[in-house]
Amino acid sequence: MELTFLGTSAGTPTRHRNVTGLALQHGGSRGWYLIDCGEGTQHQVQKTHHTLGQLRAIFITHVHGDHTFGLPGLLASASMAGRTEPLPLIAPPSIRTFVETTLGATDSNLGYGIEFIEAHADGFHWQDEHIDVTTAALSHRVPTVAYQVTERHLERHLLTDRLQADGVPAGPAWGELQRGQDVTLEDGRLLRSADYVTVNRSPRRVVVGGDNDTPELLSEVCRGAQVLVHESTYTQDVSDRVGPWPQHSSAEQVARFAEAAGVPNLVLTHFSSRYQFSHPSAPLIDEIEQEARRFYSGNLNLARDLETYVLDRDGHLALAPAAG
Amino acid sequence: MELTFLGTSAGTPTRHRNVTGLALQHGGSRGWYLIDCGEGTQHQVQKTHHTLGQLRAIFITHVHGDHTFGLPGLLASASMAGRTEPLPLIAPPSIRTFVETTLGATDSNLGYGIEFIEAHADGFHWQDEHIDVTTAALSHRVPTVAYQVTERHLERHLLTDRLQADGVPAGPAWGELQRGQDVTLEDGRLLRSADYVTVNRSPRRVVVGGDNDTPELLSEVCRGAQVLVHESTYTQDVSDRVGPWPQHSSAEQVARFAEAAGVPNLVLTHFSSRYQFSHPSAPLIDEIEQEARRFYSGNLNLARDLETYVLDRDGHLALAPAAG
Repeated sequence: MELTFLGTSAGTPTRHRNVTGLALQHGGSRGWYLIDCGEGTQHQVQKTHHTLGQLRAIFITHVHGDHTFGLPGLLASASMAGRTEPLPLIAPPSIRTFVETTLGATDSNLGYGIEFIEAHADGFHWQDEHIDVTTAALSHRVPTVAYQVTERHLERHLLTDRLQADGVPAGPAWGELQRGQDVTLEDGRLLRSADYVTVNRSPRRVVVGGDNDTPELLSEVCRGAQVLVHESTYTQDVSDRVGPWPQHSSAEQVARFAEAAGVPNLVLTHFSSRYQFSHPSAPLIDEIEQEARRFYSGNLNLARDLETYVLDRDGHLALAPAAG
Repeated sequence: MELTFLGTSAGTPTRHRNVTGLALQHGGSRGWYLIDCGEGTQHQVQKTHHTLGQLRAIFITHVHGDHTFGLPGLLASASMAGRTEPLPLIAPPSIRTFVETTLGATDSNLGYGIEFIEAHADGFHWQDEHIDVTTAALSHRVPTVAYQVTERHLERHLLTDRLQADGVPAGPAWGELQRGQDVTLEDGRLLRSADYVTVNRSPRRVVVGGDNDTPELLSEVCRGAQVLVHESTYTQDVSDRVGPWPQHSSAEQVARFAEAAGVPNLVLTHFSSRYQFSHPSAPLIDEIEQEARRFYSGNLNLARDLETYVLDRDGHLALAPAAG
C-alpha cells in the first residue's frame, strides 16, 4: 500500500507546496484512489506514475476549496484522456452541486459517468474489490470526515497438515480452498475453506483525517490502524495566537493523541502556507516536527509534496526512494 | 505594456505548460489584468512579480474549463491574502453561475465583492483609468470573444511656442494645460488644453483572441493594433486530420490572416497538449513556428509559459530578459 502526497499546504498553494491531495495505491496493477483534490491536483498527478484512467474512486473529506477546487479540471482531463469507466465520487452533498453546475456552465461533457456517493451519511461504508472504507465525523468549520481505509483479501495460507490428516489429497481442491472457495469432494464430503486456511497477519489500515480541531474523534477509527495521516496546520504557539476559529490542530494536539492511541506511524501534513521546508526568513516546518517529537514516540513523518510512503505487509511505513 | 503568458497549453496542462492565462500589465505601479484563468493560474502568478492584491480586473474569453477552472481558487486566495478592493470579472453570464455556486457550495467567503460584467453584450466597452477594452465576437463551440486593449492617457507635449505667441507666461497654467485641464487666466481668457498640447504617437493596442476557427473575424479589432495574441492549436495537417469540430485555428490560418491584416507583431499560443518545446518523440512546437513563418513576414513569437513580452511606446514587441 502506497501513499503519495500531492499537496501539503493549507488554504493556498505556496511556490513549493500544493494544496491538499493524497494518492493511495493498493491492489492489482496500477489502480489508485484520490483523497481530496485541491486546485492543481491533476498537475501533481502528472508528476507521479498514476494516470487518470486508472483512478478507482475519489474521496473528499470536506467542501473547502483547498480540498476540492481541482475536481472539475481533473474530471475533465480524465475524459479528454479517454476514460469511459464510471468514477465513484464520495463527498459531501454540496460537492455534487458544485461539480454538476461547473461542468454544465463550462460546456464540459464527460465521456464517463460520475457516481456521486454521500460521504457524510451515518454508517457510511464503501468497498470495492481491494479496499473497505468507513468514516469518522470530525470537528471543523464545515462537516468533515476522516476516511479509514482497510485492505481486503489477505494472503491465505493452506493448512496442509490438516488437509493430509483429513485425507484430502493434493490437487485442484487445495487451490480452490486457498482461494476461499468451499469444495465438495467426489466422496460427497463438503470442505469449508475457513477450516483449511489461515491468515497470518492483520490487514493494513490507514486513517486519513480531514481538517479537524479534535483529534480524539479519531480514537475509534484508529483501532488497528498502522498509519494516521492528519493535518497539523500550526505549532501550538501559532495556534494559540490565531485563536480557535479556524478549527485546525496543532502539532502538539495530534502528537499527544497519536501517542495515547498507540498509532505506530504518524504522517503530518496540511501545514499553513506560512511554513516552508527551507527559507531564510519564513517559519520552518522543522518547528512542527520538533514539537510533535516531544509528544509522540512512534514513527513520525512530515509529508512533502510528491513523496511516496510505502506501508508493507508487516505494518512498517517507510519513505520510498525518489523516482528517477 | 507587458504581457506574461501564464499558460500555453490547450485543453489539459502538460508537465511543462499550463492551461490558458495571460497577465497584462499597464499603467501605474504594479496593477495588472488577467485574461482567462485556467486551473493553476494562481500557481503561475506566484512565479511572477504580480500579486492578487494588485489585480485590477479579470477578462474571460469563453466558458471552457481550460480558460476558467482556476477562477474559484484565485478568487479565494486573493481574499486570504487580504484583498478588500472590489474586482471586476468580465465574462460570459454562465461564469457568474459557476463562480457563485462554487464559492457557495464550498463555504468560501470572499472579503471583497466581485463585479460581474457581461462580456458578450453587443457594444461592450469597459475602461478604467489606464485602459479601454472592447470585444469582437469569434467563432468557436461556445460564444467566445477577443479583447482589444488600448492604452489611455498618452504623454501630452506642451506647444510652448504657441503659448508664448499667445502671451501666456510660463507658470502653473502650463502644467494644468499639459495635464489636460482647461484654464481661465486672470485676464479672463479661457485656454483649452486641446489647443496647446499635442500627442506624438499612437496608443498601444493589443488584441487577445479566445479560441476561434475564423481569424478573419478579428479584422476590425486589429486595426491600429501592434500585437495580436491568437491561438494556434495545431499545424494545418493535424488540423485537417482532427477535422473541423473542435473549431480551432491552425498556424497557417492565423499567419495568413495576420499577414493580410498587417499586424506587425504576432504571438501564437494555446498549443495542443500533444506539442512540446523539446521532446525526443512528441511533435514539436517548432513545427507550428515553421508553418507560421511561411505565411507571415512580421515579428513572429511562440509563447512559452512565464515568458514576458514588452510592448514599448514605439510599438516594438520584444521578449523581456528572464527574471532572476
